[in-house]
Amino acid sequence: MDKLQRKERVAAIIKILSDNPNKVFSLGYFSDFFGSARSTLSEDISLAKKVVEYLGCGKIETLSGAAGGVKYTPGLSEKLKSEFLNELCEKLSSPDRIIKGGYIYMNDIVFSPDISSKVGTILAAYFIDKNVDYVVTVETKGIPIALMTANALNKPLVIARREVGVTEGSSVSINYVTGSSKKIQRMSLGKRALKKGSRCIFIDDFMKAGGTANGIVELLKEFDCELVGIGVLVEASADKKLVSDYISLLTLDMVDEENGKIKIYPTTNN
Amino acid sequence: MDKLQRKERVAAIIKILSDNPNKVFSLGYFSDFFGSARSTLSEDISLAKKVVEYLGCGKIETLSGAAGGVKYTPGLSEKLKSEFLNELCEKLSSPDRIIKGGYIYMNDIVFSPDISSKVGTILAAYFIDKNVDYVVTVETKGIPIALMTANALNKPLVIARREVGVTEGSSVSINYVTGSSKKIQRMSLGKRALKKGSRCIFIDDFMKAGGTANGIVELLKEFDCELVGIGVLVEASADKKLVSDYISLLTLDMVDEENGKIKIYPTTNN
Repeated sequence: MDKLQRKERVAAIIKILSDNPNKVFSLGYFSDFFGSARSTLSEDISLAKKVVEYLGCGKIETLSGAAGGVKYTPGLSEKLKSEFLNELCEKLSSPDRIIKGGYIYMNDIVFSPDISSKVGTILAAYFIDKNVDYVVTVETKGIPIALMTANALNKPLVIARREVGVTEGSSVSINYVTGSSKKIQRMSLGKRALKKGSRCIFIDDFMKAGGTANGIVELLKEFDCELVGIGVLVEASADKKLVSDYISLLTLDMVDEENGKIKIYPTTNN
Repeated sequence: MDKLQRKERVAAIIKILSDNPNKVFSLGYFSDFFGSARSTLSEDISLAKKVVEYLGCGKIETLSGAAGGVKYTPGLSEKLKSEFLNELCEKLSSPDRIIKGGYIYMNDIVFSPDISSKVGTILAAYFIDKNVDYVVTVETKGIPIALMTANALNKPLVIARREVGVTEGSSVSINYVTGSSKKIQRMSLGKRALKKGSRCIFIDDFMKAGGTANGIVELLKEFDCELVGIGVLVEASADKKLVSDYISLLTLDMVDEENGKIKIYPTTNN
């Protein structure tokens, strides 16, 4: 195929970087790939940076030094983020989402690839400088968001199970107490899932009191790993929290079953 | 911000299309967004098509008619697909993956955002013309691949559960018999998860005899929905299949625990 021209090369660079978030590509890689001089590519990359800024979808950075190169960090501009979270609140406050017991139905939201990828991009931004080795979640409902967060950070996802599967090999199980209903629960993780001494973040769809987060801390201790951050899509404001340091994107303030009212808004203290 | 020039606009178009796979954007949308004439944009889109073709990462199509516009369908060229699947086989044949019972450890592979997104892109391509309404999977290990398939198809993901959760509302449960071990299992799905009369595909990480796929057929019947396709990452060749029409990307031929040997290769009949 013919050599690409600048107007095509800038697009190709954006596509490659965008398909590989937070992966560093050397200038040499692009130079070989396109058969272009490095100086030409530097100009291409400047244009790519401008486009990403224009779209408000993250940033492209040039890193210097031996491990240097170019990388794309996905993101949403404050404006896009605020629009997205407000739309989400509107969807989630529909009275027909109320489920007996004061819950709201969120599966269609948290399982939607479109929504979970944006949520993952937004959550990842809070942890990008935390030197994260793994994104950890507990089955089941948090998995899509956690996967998309891991994707944006370019880090592996680890899923703790409620029950031990036969395909995990040796595993470690712990007991923990749920924060709101004080029930004893169990979670387990295959021994090979985490490398000793790793830094992990816990991502989930919903947090009431934070009992599950505490369980994750216990589980990580068994692997000599550290929890360096917690991020959830929705926190319930009614419950006193067992954990202090976490990020939530939305706050569920009230579910009034009797009058069919839900109060949910973007969390303000981020 | 200044108006973008062609060399930037082509890149912006690719980024927007690529972040929204299989979503149709009207020419009018781009025309408003960039403040450019439609004729100019048509040329931009031709360049974007060329770039995607050059990279072997799917295709950009122009659809005519009232619902017309431009859309990007992710894909991998035959060359990239074959390279990727061969690399995957190499990783999966490492003897330290053998787990007692003739299983191989795949969690790090199927939970990796990088790998699951490529697997999802490849699987989606088989079902793009099937008029799919939902991608269905059963918790837990198939979720990342199913989510990425749903993402590539721009369709919602639905996850059947092993146990009924309190946050699903009313749900339907069925019993099914596993194909290889003849155990009775149960799966359930919230009543609001699927619209009556929908066309669904079932995506999973691993298929032995296909008992789970049969369970999905039963479950979908309860919702008056139809299973129009099955796609799995790995099928085990040893087991006689209960389902005939399915796509697998890799075939696991043999796990020799005693001698520490695994035989796995890209499935040839696709």
